[in-house]
Amino acid sequence: MTGRPLYRDPDAPVQARVRDLLDRMTLREKVGQVNQRLYGWDAYERTPGGHRLTETFHAEVAAHDGMGALYGLQRADPWSGVGFADGIAAADGARVADDVQRYVVEHTRLGVPVLFVEEVPHGHQALDGTVLPVNLAVGATWDPDLYESAAEAVGAELRARGGHVALVSALDLVRDPRWGRAEECFGEDPHLAARFTEALVRGMGRARAAVVLKHFAGQGATVGGRNSAATELGPRELHEIHLVAARAGVRAGAAGVMAAYNELDGLPCVASHPLLTGLLRDRWGYDGLVMADGGAIDRLVRLTGDPVAAGAMALAAGCDLSLWDSCFPRLAEAVTRGLVPEATLDTAVARVLGLKFRLGLFEQPYASGRPAHEPPYPVRELSERIARASVVLLEHDGATLPLGPSARRIAVLGPNADSVPQQIGDYTAPQRPGTGFTVLEGIRAAAPGGVEVTHAAGCALTGADLSAIPEAVELAASSDVAVLVLGGSSARDGATVFDSNGAALAGAAGPGGMTCGEGVDLAELALPAGQLRLIDAVAATGTPVVVVLVQGRPHALPDLSGTVGAVLSAWYPGPWGGSAVADVLFGRAEPEGRLPVSVPRSAAQLPVHYNGKDHGYRGYVDQPASARHPFGHGLSYTTVSYGAPRLSRTSVPLDAPTLTCTVTVTNTGHRPVCETVQLYVRRMSGGSSWPRTRELRGFARVPLRPGETAEAVFDIDADTLASVTRDLTVGVEAGELLLETGPSSARTRAVSLTVGP
Amino acid sequence: MTGRPLYRDPDAPVQARVRDLLDRMTLREKVGQVNQRLYGWDAYERTPGGHRLTETFHAEVAAHDGMGALYGLQRADPWSGVGFADGIAAADGARVADDVQRYVVEHTRLGVPVLFVEEVPHGHQALDGTVLPVNLAVGATWDPDLYESAAEAVGAELRARGGHVALVSALDLVRDPRWGRAEECFGEDPHLAARFTEALVRGMGRARAAVVLKHFAGQGATVGGRNSAATELGPRELHEIHLVAARAGVRAGAAGVMAAYNELDGLPCVASHPLLTGLLRDRWGYDGLVMADGGAIDRLVRLTGDPVAAGAMALAAGCDLSLWDSCFPRLAEAVTRGLVPEATLDTAVARVLGLKFRLGLFEQPYASGRPAHEPPYPVRELSERIARASVVLLEHDGATLPLGPSARRIAVLGPNADSVPQQIGDYTAPQRPGTGFTVLEGIRAAAPGGVEVTHAAGCALTGADLSAIPEAVELAASSDVAVLVLGGSSARDGATVFDSNGAALAGAAGPGGMTCGEGVDLAELALPAGQLRLIDAVAATGTPVVVVLVQGRPHALPDLSGTVGAVLSAWYPGPWGGSAVADVLFGRAEPEGRLPVSVPRSAAQLPVHYNGKDHGYRGYVDQPASARHPFGHGLSYTTVSYGAPRLSRTSVPLDAPTLTCTVTVTNTGHRPVCETVQLYVRRMSGGSSWPRTRELRGFARVPLRPGETAEAVFDIDADTLASVTRDLTVGVEAGELLLETGPSSARTRAVSLTVGP
Repeated sequence: MTGRPLYRDPDAPVQARVRDLLDRMTLREKVGQVNQRLYGWDAYERTPGGHRLTETFHAEVAAHDGMGALYGLQRADPWSGVGFADGIAAADGARVADDVQRYVVEHTRLGVPVLFVEEVPHGHQALDGTVLPVNLAVGATWDPDLYESAAEAVGAELRARGGHVALVSALDLVRDPRWGRAEECFGEDPHLAARFTEALVRGMGRARAAVVLKHFAGQGATVGGRNSAATELGPRELHEIHLVAARAGVRAGAAGVMAAYNELDGLPCVASHPLLTGLLRDRWGYDGLVMADGGAIDRLVRLTGDPVAAGAMALAAGCDLSLWDSCFPRLAEAVTRGLVPEATLDTAVARVLGLKFRLGLFEQPYASGRPAHEPPYPVRELSERIARASVVLLEHDGATLPLGPSARRIAVLGPNADSVPQQIGDYTAPQRPGTGFTVLEGIRAAAPGGVEVTHAAGCALTGADLSAIPEAVELAASSDVAVLVLGGSSARDGATVFDSNGAALAGAAGPGGMTCGEGVDLAELALPAGQLRLIDAVAATGTPVVVVLVQGRPHALPDLSGTVGAVLSAWYPGPWGGSAVADVLFGRAEPEGRLPVSVPRSAAQLPVHYNGKDHGYRGYVDQPASARHPFGHGLSYTTVSYGAPRLSRTSVPLDAPTLTCTVTVTNTGHRPVCETVQLYVRRMSGGSSWPRTRELRGFARVPLRPGETAEAVFDIDADTLASVTRDLTVGVEAGELLLETGPSSARTRAVSLTVGP
Repeated sequence: MTGRPLYRDPDAPVQARVRDLLDRMTLREKVGQVNQRLYGWDAYERTPGGHRLTETFHAEVAAHDGMGALYGLQRADPWSGVGFADGIAAADGARVADDVQRYVVEHTRLGVPVLFVEEVPHGHQALDGTVLPVNLAVGATWDPDLYESAAEAVGAELRARGGHVALVSALDLVRDPRWGRAEECFGEDPHLAARFTEALVRGMGRARAAVVLKHFAGQGATVGGRNSAATELGPRELHEIHLVAARAGVRAGAAGVMAAYNELDGLPCVASHPLLTGLLRDRWGYDGLVMADGGAIDRLVRLTGDPVAAGAMALAAGCDLSLWDSCFPRLAEAVTRGLVPEATLDTAVARVLGLKFRLGLFEQPYASGRPAHEPPYPVRELSERIARASVVLLEHDGATLPLGPSARRIAVLGPNADSVPQQIGDYTAPQRPGTGFTVLEGIRAAAPGGVEVTHAAGCALTGADLSAIPEAVELAASSDVAVLVLGGSSARDGATVFDSNGAALAGAAGPGGMTCGEGVDLAELALPAGQLRLIDAVAATGTPVVVVLVQGRPHALPDLSGTVGAVLSAWYPGPWGGSAVADVLFGRAEPEGRLPVSVPRSAAQLPVHYNGKDHGYRGYVDQPASARHPFGHGLSYTTVSYGAPRLSRTSVPLDAPTLTCTVTVTNTGHRPVCETVQLYVRRMSGGSSWPRTRELRGFARVPLRPGETAEAVFDIDADTLASVTRDLTVGVEAGELLLETGPSSARTRAVSLTVGP
């Protein structure tokens, strides 16, 4: 035997190393490993020549002779304004991280490295982090492969500057578009979100970045779309809709999930043993990390009346690693008071240590010496590709787009036409001046020589001030086409102060009028009166109008089909989104995005989903219950005809429900397209739960030249046909199904399939 | 031993009689007892001299040699229009019922009497049935004693004409005011609804009328307020909010509950063994009847693919008696196919027979020979008293009301000013011409001599037609006060055809513009544009304006405090509601109603409740999340000051949590009032579920003369302090509570109470 302890042996199995290390740890050291209390930006101070570690940081390491994880080291303090003076440039990232790491490794008894945890919702949220379009735009691409590449490139960027763990929103669904975090969701659909979640985990994994999936669970369905409020749903609705992406992400190998702020039917997620242990551990067999959302454990004091008991409650429920709260630091007291067994703490510590071992931190704690992962494409290119692929053509008269030679004078109007901050969304890295292209800039750059591009805002982002409309009308009247760039904004004023409830934000919107983002929930989903009047006034000039919506949620839209020539949603397309939009407008790229979420007619008809329960509801007395634009919808510059779906078998046994479903598609127009063929399942009988109208269970991207015919072939198996059974497991149930294919959830053709018994 | 079978022995215990009778029955006869398939109005035909029983009826009796129950015998066929030609007059009711009963008793082998089941939602829904205000108005009285008297009087009216069982909406809560059946609810609060449900059961019981409580369960919380759609809530939310009134009603001795149309988290109520058996039977120990809602069992074919299996599923779940469906008639096949044991059918039959025995039908099957129950007050008087007590003064400038001698000329305007049908709600007996008083008539009758009362509609009930506004403005301009009677209407056009989904109704609103009632859900809760413009136009004349809302739901209101002098909600006050409203306007009665439901600002902020979960939400970025007018709110013509609540003990043990809470109230104004003092409980720590902002747990009506001081004393016990525990039972949990008293949910003073351990 040498003097080297087993946990330092890189060839020993991870579980043995964990066990060995755990056995050496004091209660105090264990508590240190499950804590992530300090903000990363409080760990260092800038000095004229660089930076130095703070006393606060030293004290935090000393408190438990170690540090489990450090959140946001690379990020500037967002609470005091995100600026360039405060942030760590990419080039300095690894050095700062290594200094922090070195201190932890060298100044603690056992030398357990710290885990660097970073916000990476759509690109690394740190100075020089390359920004992707928001997840809602990603969802609109219906292209998980593209996103997988982007995740890999982002992961490489994160790792290169010292980060280990990426916190990424992936699990929330837009079940209520009033919610300000709708932009962070891949859409309303569990299947679509699951495919993107898998792509995220796989892509990051290739860069050896660990992913913690946000948020577990049901946060997209809080009452009234109110941030971090109650989710009142029952277990079956949760399983059918809200847990699907989490299950997929966990199976794909995510390092962890983040226990959400919201309660589920009375029990906060961070305190939910049924969720974090009963389901995640015992049922799904997951052994990754559960990280609590920031300060979420502190809120449990409202239940326990005591922070020590609150920490014990969260630990016992299944939280392994805290974030910012004042309860987990007191877990030693919780153990000695007998509120939670030390064995439970050991399990949590083991999960934190396991991740550190698997990431190789004990062998290679420093970023500087690590060989960089080279992704196949740079983030910046992928960001623009996603932006381009996410543009959804919602309405089109068939003539206005793409802009052709007759568009000699183009008026680019609207409050979102010329602002990078307004097109990049919340949770975004600070942008260096000059980064990106606005839609106005994109159009200017893309317009052929001799084309005159003019601009006026026409109105503010919010409110009903009509004073700027005449200027816009004048430009439109003298133009061949008017491009109206409208929508919302998640751009935070630099001085905005917010808390994790987002409460203070309501009164602290930036000068542009923040209408979206965390804590910025919007009740009336309609575009503000000024924007709506601008549409009408510009359309009244007779000049053809194209409306481009830059938005983090689906705004409720009036029927614009008779008013304007085309309506597109560009979501928050990221810094380079302006050129992506211009590419589509000029036909350099085809509009190929599809709605990942239903577009409502008004907030009064919420909830609006394509996959609600099938009760044959025919509508309110004053308006339909159906969406303005359905899930999956998206027009092209060409037309595609669909044949009826054909099955290789019309009846399958329960134990081997495999078949293929084939649909023939033909490009009947004059432009190429990559058509997204969608497969839905509709249950007609059998099953232990009331059926939904239809459920997306597959999609295929089929490239079609003009006149080309191709077949989309779906391999159907137990996963495709699965439903949530009576005991809340996932399985195939006997009965009659319809398999439906088509270009959107509202335009399908069906074929019958009998399953079992 | 005589030849008389045991079941015919009135002195034998009911269970023994049931057992004896069951043992004699064939499978076919048993199936007959759990069926209620025929519409009552199809059982007879009118003849020149009276009526005769139909072949359809004879065939239905013959099919199973008996008839379990007959629905709506006294009611005219609502599907072909409710008219006087079709209905049975009160004077003929007993005779028709007796003829039907005689046929059943005399033409079946065992002579088991039929149960006559009638719709009695707010008065017996049959020709000459005396109509009460809708339940939402009843809830606004906060006076269960008054309602108990009304229930007794209505029960006596029902029994006098041969009815046995009253179907009464009581269990649904207004959790989404878009729902067209909001008018049938006692409000949004479980405690308030529970008190009225108990009053209903007790009052009906005194008249020996059996009550089946509608609907079990959660129907007031369907998605989007859509009629009979999905309720997605979890079990804890159901227990805390939606099952409270049912538990109270069952404990009070209700004969039965009606299993609702909606699903609960995937499982339709009629198919829910956990609900109908696990909770109702096993946990609550209830042995009353479970009746399925009309045709609800047929819908289960969507799950089973087979009507026989659907019947078996409902029976196995716990349904005892069907309504209209085609599945329960085939239960014999379900038993012989082994889909459900005959013992399960026996249990259901036993419950039907048990009710018949308890009602004394074997001894006294006929109404004609039965001594009439004489209630202390006639229904008509109680109807008007409820209407008067239900008027809620929402806003008041302190000067406009009551109308005094200076009001020499009164303009009574608005589309609800002069229509009895529009003020009586859905599920209402046809009204003989000349019945009741409109608000216009009430004001005319109540106005002192010499006062001139004028009238114009000013606008239609719905839409944005402004053409009639000038006439109203002219009348208002030349008047001393304008009373604007606005709101909604559940008045069905005589020719309206609807199904139980209400689907066809959306396009078939009556000429007045039906905006409420079963199947008439309203997305945008705002008053229609015409009505809103009428308010503004009339207010602009400078004449003081009083807005009276005649409505079946709380319409979303703009802030009218600076525009009009007073706003009152009169709900649907019933046929004599016009005089009740006039009494309040002229100060002959005080406005003493209190909101049983929150009044929202807009549909965009739904859900809006005073008792949501306490997550400290501070509002949407574009509007508050709080109500325009909170639950419990209601102004008076006087002012009342409240002292701080005082407790007899500030700490109580878990096993004997009894104390008193006293609050001193003083009438500081110049008019008398009966003040409704409200007691709320707010949990600050402890408890197994996330706490609500507050929960109503008591109220007391305190009469106060001008200047008088009195004390409201609340006896607090385990029921007052109870919460839903971790295992979904109801019990007292240790922790810190606040007891809050005040005149509304938004104006309370608190005192701390420690419970246990």
